Amino acid sequence: MQQRSAFFVSDRTGITAETMGLSLISQFDLIEFVRTTLPFIDSITKAERAKERINAAYAADKTLPIVFGTLIAPPIRKIITSAQGHFIDFFGTFIAPLETVLACKSSHSIGKIHAQGNLTTYNQRMEAVNFALNVDDGAQTQKYQQADLILIGVSRSGKTPTCLYLAMQYGIKAANYPLTEEDMQSSDLPKLLAPYTKKLFGLTINPQRLHTIRASRFPHSQYAELRQCQREVRIVEALFAKSSVPYLSATALSIEELSSKLLDITQIQRHFP
Amino acid sequence: MQQRSAFFVSDRTGITAETMGLSLISQFDLIEFVRTTLPFIDSITKAERAKERINAAYAADKTLPIVFGTLIAPPIRKIITSAQGHFIDFFGTFIAPLETVLACKSSHSIGKIHAQGNLTTYNQRMEAVNFALNVDDGAQTQKYQQADLILIGVSRSGKTPTCLYLAMQYGIKAANYPLTEEDMQSSDLPKLLAPYTKKLFGLTINPQRLHTIRASRFPHSQYAELRQCQREVRIVEALFAKSSVPYLSATALSIEELSSKLLDITQIQRHFP
Repeated sequence: MQQRSAFFVSDRTGITAETMGLSLISQFDLIEFVRTTLPFIDSITKAERAKERINAAYAADKTLPIVFGTLIAPPIRKIITSAQGHFIDFFGTFIAPLETVLACKSSHSIGKIHAQGNLTTYNQRMEAVNFALNVDDGAQTQKYQQADLILIGVSRSGKTPTCLYLAMQYGIKAANYPLTEEDMQSSDLPKLLAPYTKKLFGLTINPQRLHTIRASRFPHSQYAELRQCQREVRIVEALFAKSSVPYLSATALSIEELSSKLLDITQIQRHFP
Repeated sequence: MQQRSAFFVSDRTGITAETMGLSLISQFDLIEFVRTTLPFIDSITKAERAKERINAAYAADKTLPIVFGTLIAPPIRKIITSAQGHFIDFFGTFIAPLETVLACKSSHSIGKIHAQGNLTTYNQRMEAVNFALNVDDGAQTQKYQQADLILIGVSRSGKTPTCLYLAMQYGIKAANYPLTEEDMQSSDLPKLLAPYTKKLFGLTINPQRLHTIRASRFPHSQYAELRQCQREVRIVEALFAKSSVPYLSATALSIEELSSKLLDITQIQRHFP
């Protein structure tokens, strides 16, 4: 397999540089990329040091490193451009045409997007995270009235991380309720969920996958047995269908994809970004 | 204030399109952008519908909407390009030069990056999220041995969401310990933290900001009083300095920035991405 160095160079966190860089290099699956993130490159000295690291990678690899840059300040961008790498210049490429079409100069200022300034957003985020923590795993069901969403599914289908992600990323108040052995005795939804049917969303998962996940935590338990997983998934999917609860399978989806699809289906309003 | 429509069009979640689009439009702070995300545009029919929405925005606004696209499939890209908008074509712009420099064709396949395939990553993420939940807010300190990091600071300085973000985003096991009234009686770190001094990282916050945050939850409480906040922050900052605990102020930073800076300072190893 061909190996190449990839750098993500940013004057702030590097999150945008990484997000865009990873989505581009994921298109080249025959190449193995050795990745380095260089965040907070916001001075000439730091830029010179970043350039040295890129040049060192070139000297070692004998092929040009790929450099994904989200750098606003032209003097810093100039230094990184002069390194021995192939520079994918995010702002340099797109800002000028945007200035033309918007008939407006860009502010050329760093880190606008993540600035904490907005107390409302901060509060919404904290409130949603606290909500998710308080009502996690079937706790405090009396708070369901405040929920934007209630995720239901078998244990270990990915409900908790999905709720936390929705809270953190979009300020959505998501509760999660694990369907227990007792709940599965009935072919109807648990009574306590009845007032909230419109907020329900189901998660399912491939039984084999569920078995692997459970067994990695509780090997040799009845809970992790493949047969047990198959049974639970079958019952829960039948329940979703009977009660017209929309649902998704978590098997082949990351938390990000799951969350994004769920919002697309339910059209729940995001509070940000 | 000038208003413009902005669309984020993607064949997957839209996360990359939003991340790149928001970082670009944040450079134009004199313009108010009305934002619409159109994820999972992965068929001709959906692309045609997306085009109609863009055209409708143009008809209403009388100015070209800005369309940020992360679309892989050329036929879909072609439809979106033909809409009445200014298209910022992420893959179209960068993939061809990358193919040249890498001497390798791109796979032109959708959604490589977020595919859940990797069970190891999935497990690391889950394990880190569970860890953060179990040891939140000073609970189960006997588990600190397993922690990559222990965040300390006054109540409401942003420890919990930072720990959850580090777990979710990077698979880092982060615990958090709130410094209590009792802990603040001493000018030394609490004894139970003594074995872990190398894992400690402090969070501080502007007292006025802390007061606002606390008062929004517990108005008129002694806990939220400005004087109380000033006192706690003063004591905690002195403690960090005396015990050589590295620390950051959460006042002007988002969770993302805080996490990214913290990793830059501590050089804690990320497990992904």
